[in-house]
Amino acid sequence: SLAADELPTKEALKKAAEEAHAKFKDEKEGKNADYIPALAKVPSELFGIAIVTADGEVIEVGDVDYSFSMQSCSKVFTMCMVMEESGAEAIFEKINVEPTGMPFNSIKAIEHGDGRADNPLVNAGAIATVSMIKADSPEQRWKKISDYYNLLAGEELKVLEDVYVSEAETNFRNRGIANVLFNSGNLFCDPLEATDVYTRQCSVGVTTAQLAMMASPLANDGVHPVSKKTFLKEDEVPKVLSIMTMAGFYDGAGQWAWKTGLPAKTGVGGGIFAIVPGKMVIVAFSPPVDQYGNSVRAQKAIQYIADKFEYNIFDED
Amino acid sequence: SLAADELPTKEALKKAAEEAHAKFKDEKEGKNADYIPALAKVPSELFGIAIVTADGEVIEVGDVDYSFSMQSCSKVFTMCMVMEESGAEAIFEKINVEPTGMPFNSIKAIEHGDGRADNPLVNAGAIATVSMIKADSPEQRWKKISDYYNLLAGEELKVLEDVYVSEAETNFRNRGIANVLFNSGNLFCDPLEATDVYTRQCSVGVTTAQLAMMASPLANDGVHPVSKKTFLKEDEVPKVLSIMTMAGFYDGAGQWAWKTGLPAKTGVGGGIFAIVPGKMVIVAFSPPVDQYGNSVRAQKAIQYIADKFEYNIFDED
Amino acid sequence: SLAADELPTKEALKKAAEEAHAKFKDEKEGKNADYIPALAKVPSELFGIAIVTADGEVIEVGDVDYSFSMQSCSKVFTMCMVMEESGAEAIFEKINVEPTGMPFNSIKAIEHGDGRADNPLVNAGAIATVSMIKADSPEQRWKKISDYYNLLAGEELKVLEDVYVSEAETNFRNRGIANVLFNSGNLFCDPLEATDVYTRQCSVGVTTAQLAMMASPLANDGVHPVSKKTFLKEDEVPKVLSIMTMAGFYDGAGQWAWKTGLPAKTGVGGGIFAIVPGKMVIVAFSPPVDQYGNSVRAQKAIQYIADKFEYNIFDED
Amino acid sequence: SLAADELPTKEALKKAAEEAHAKFKDEKEGKNADYIPALAKVPSELFGIAIVTADGEVIEVGDVDYSFSMQSCSKVFTMCMVMEESGAEAIFEKINVEPTGMPFNSIKAIEHGDGRADNPLVNAGAIATVSMIKADSPEQRWKKISDYYNLLAGEELKVLEDVYVSEAETNFRNRGIANVLFNSGNLFCDPLEATDVYTRQCSVGVTTAQLAMMASPLANDGVHPVSKKTFLKEDEVPKVLSIMTMAGFYDGAGQWAWKTGLPAKTGVGGGIFAIVPGKMVIVAFSPPVDQYGNSVRAQKAIQYIADKFEYNIFDED
Repeated sequence: SLAADELPTKEALKKAAEEAHAKFKDEKEGKNADYIPALAKVPSELFGIAIVTADGEVIEVGDVDYSFSMQSCSKVFTMCMVMEESGAEAIFEKINVEPTGMPFNSIKAIEHGDGRADNPLVNAGAIATVSMIKADSPEQRWKKISDYYNLLAGEELKVLEDVYVSEAETNFRNRGIANVLFNSGNLFCDPLEATDVYTRQCSVGVTTAQLAMMASPLANDGVHPVSKKTFLKEDEVPKVLSIMTMAGFYDGAGQWAWKTGLPAKTGVGGGIFAIVPGKMVIVAFSPPVDQYGNSVRAQKAIQYIADKFEYNIFDED
Repeated sequence: SLAADELPTKEALKKAAEEAHAKFKDEKEGKNADYIPALAKVPSELFGIAIVTADGEVIEVGDVDYSFSMQSCSKVFTMCMVMEESGAEAIFEKINVEPTGMPFNSIKAIEHGDGRADNPLVNAGAIATVSMIKADSPEQRWKKISDYYNLLAGEELKVLEDVYVSEAETNFRNRGIANVLFNSGNLFCDPLEATDVYTRQCSVGVTTAQLAMMASPLANDGVHPVSKKTFLKEDEVPKVLSIMTMAGFYDGAGQWAWKTGLPAKTGVGGGIFAIVPGKMVIVAFSPPVDQYGNSVRAQKAIQYIADKFEYNIFDED
Repeated sequence: SLAADELPTKEALKKAAEEAHAKFKDEKEGKNADYIPALAKVPSELFGIAIVTADGEVIEVGDVDYSFSMQSCSKVFTMCMVMEESGAEAIFEKINVEPTGMPFNSIKAIEHGDGRADNPLVNAGAIATVSMIKADSPEQRWKKISDYYNLLAGEELKVLEDVYVSEAETNFRNRGIANVLFNSGNLFCDPLEATDVYTRQCSVGVTTAQLAMMASPLANDGVHPVSKKTFLKEDEVPKVLSIMTMAGFYDGAGQWAWKTGLPAKTGVGGGIFAIVPGKMVIVAFSPPVDQYGNSVRAQKAIQYIADKFEYNIFDED
Repeated sequence: SLAADELPTKEALKKAAEEAHAKFKDEKEGKNADYIPALAKVPSELFGIAIVTADGEVIEVGDVDYSFSMQSCSKVFTMCMVMEESGAEAIFEKINVEPTGMPFNSIKAIEHGDGRADNPLVNAGAIATVSMIKADSPEQRWKKISDYYNLLAGEELKVLEDVYVSEAETNFRNRGIANVLFNSGNLFCDPLEATDVYTRQCSVGVTTAQLAMMASPLANDGVHPVSKKTFLKEDEVPKVLSIMTMAGFYDGAGQWAWKTGLPAKTGVGGGIFAIVPGKMVIVAFSPPVDQYGNSVRAQKAIQYIADKFEYNIFDED
């Protein structure tokens, strides 16, 4: 990882996070996602920010104790786990790494190409990623994911049962996608098993700091800055970040790249994490989302902090 | 721009380029594009490499005197010109900056969204970009582009008349796209004028070094390293590079980002230029292209050189 | 043609038409098409009905003197002319005869298949049909259509110049479609020539009785009931009617077939003609159209008359 | 039903069927469908023809004892049952009656409209039709279909268990479609229940004469010519025939209508039945199918017989 003197001080980061929180806490745009009933009930005013740096510092501001469901943020972590287990090329070959230009739950995307899912960060690809985990049973499949997430977080995470139940009762579109993928040979376990385990991983609850901690190896060459464990080979990290750049915001990925220039992943639960390679993870969380399903306050907060320190991978340093 | 000591020596760059040339000159994959008849006649064995660094050094290897047509590489330069003339936001609003997940000449792309072209690097968006230039006549529109290209190259470039004639006689699909865009209010001059000027800019001939020179401000915060003229505002450069990353390789953009991590633009004439932000432009040219229309040898050469110096925007430094 | 005793009396037909006119003249649904500016100016209250029987009787009710533009109704007549000139198989092979399930002006339709237009009654196919006419110049192409239309009508028809000018100034989407078809080898003359002649045929003015007279050979085995001239071979008539059934109402063809069971063709100018094979043509005209571009009053009037006499090709007699 | 003298004699029909059988029995085009493994094993040389007239005569030629699976032919009968149970409008409103212009198993079709299935004769719509049956359990749902089919056939039909098992093990795409329909509120029972009952109905075995007997009410105003039971209201029959015309041959419906002008339905098992309204049902069966999944010999045999007697609903009588 980088020398500490290249990083802003903890105080400077805290101040930037506080400024972002103050500036956007009264933002009224967006509303809670409601296609998953349990998400509609989360208090809309919640707003938390956390930063974990490449040398392991943790900065927290706002509603930092609330556990929200990871939702699509989880897609990145399961992808990392499959890369470690089967190699990055397995993702490249069995799923693909192209942006779709289509919404997160698109079925057309599956059909407009070769029946694969386009990338691991749309629903189709994320369910396919879950199916690639080597497991003999649904229980083992889930346990491998759960163990991996706990290791990344450095503590035990819990499934938010009300979210899981609510989502499992309404995830028919994902079941449909999984069956269609299986039919064309692009899903690698029972479709309902893959969908259920995927639904469960989406329901894992995290605080902003826990989410930042989980993503921290992506900002540190694959090594966890606290546990010092290696989660990804050094040369796989840029591949993960490239996919996040192309598809982390679905059909809004181009606009996010244009505005902030940071690889990031959103979840419809209101969480977003962004990676500053070699430096830090910036997480923000607030339930109201825009028409694309991305938290309005979280986007603005992350962009504010990134701009303040001139972090942008398309910029020269 | 960066201090010279952060850059490899000219000798090291030359050596890397020579290695790449030697390694891939006998590569047999791919074949000349033939949907434009004149391109089919360019000798397939041509293979040139050029690098222009952020401090103005020029490295050339191989067939460096051959003038090939810029084709889609031109899209980036006209986009820069429009950004300078009307502001980056004009591109964002009137065209959009999203990847399409579709081929370069897709019409579906226009219809699957809101009638805009998705981004300035697919044909639809590039023709729309041409139409955004403030001009009172086709002659003036063309002259503004031509003057701008000459300033970037630092010398006078010529239209390859046989390529232009060949392309103008067969560009019915682009005429179709332009008319459909105009119909929905997303083209801003006469459709046939926009198509013809676009065809002309695609037919401009460049050597590998000229193409690298033209792109050099994108590797140097918008300032031309030789003429010291400012071509783009500093904060517009990352926006250009973000679009190149999302869409410079069309429906192969995700795979290119995964493999190399460098913003780049290809042309069906066999040229590709890649930007290492703050450091250099790497250009390679060889006519045989793959199924997506991207030069096989040029891709490999650029990837070889980038890997050698560990250049990748998704990597920490 | 059929024996007169199988047809209702002229009085019975007149009464049915008068009932339909009275019943629907105050219908308020729908509004004039306005994407062609001249159409927006036609008085919305106009409402005419005409019937021409297989033995040449003419029944007229309501606004029977108003000349409205044929618009898409013309597509059927030009298709008949090309069938006579080049054989029905030429339409089958060069255009195709499948329903699209897509709107009248769809471009996706061209791309979702093999680049052909799907059928001669969507814009793409109608422009392709115009291009199939054997002609050495735009003037000759137009004269052949005009002469054929006049023969069908039994009198000289005029282009409504204000409609033609209005449409020619705004037909960029059709120009786009024509260029794309030409590019893939599915248009058989200059694209702008085909579009212009097509625009002109759409602008031909007809009264309801003239339109019914033009279509009368389709209700009489190809023979015109007044002039006794043969316009279509007997075995080509069912082929024309099959295409009208599949595609005469665009993406509303299935609903029209379900409700009325009569081959018919609509025009966005407010005219519709329906064929009762072997018996009669029923025409109605009124400018306000529904969301699909089909006249609201004309649909209801035709359905009323057809129901009254139990005319339905899916019914046993 | 019609007077007997309007029908050809039994001898004339038998002769026509024998001619068709002799003429096409050595036809080599096409091959057995193999995406359902059990279908690949049916002897390819099987070729049977049956006609049931509106006055109850039965004509059989060729392999008339072989029980083949109904496959998609079943879609029509379940649609009729739902019309009787819930009214024809229920089909119109909950499914739709438009042609798709897309293949039988298209998912795009679901998404290009409003989430409904387009019509009851594509897989999506057929599964939705099954879900519309009023039933409290899968067993009851299946029993209602089975009882209805037996009544139509006039004898007890059996599920071909090997076909059912083979199909149930591979129907993941249909499961996917059902889940997606359910998700958008366009499926009306549990998705897996609907898919399984649909799979079962497809596996019902029929001889050519049994299939003709089942369809006979559609040629006789809704009344079964043998049992004299009324299966459909008289005014619902044309609606069924209109849907068969628009969609009975999927994306080949337009070509079939052009060539024969008869409402018909194909099944990938090799059976096709065609309706001559008020006169007869013509059935042919032979396993080898063309690229669209329609039996090559069966199409030719039906067209031969229809042409011989000049049966075509687009013709005047």
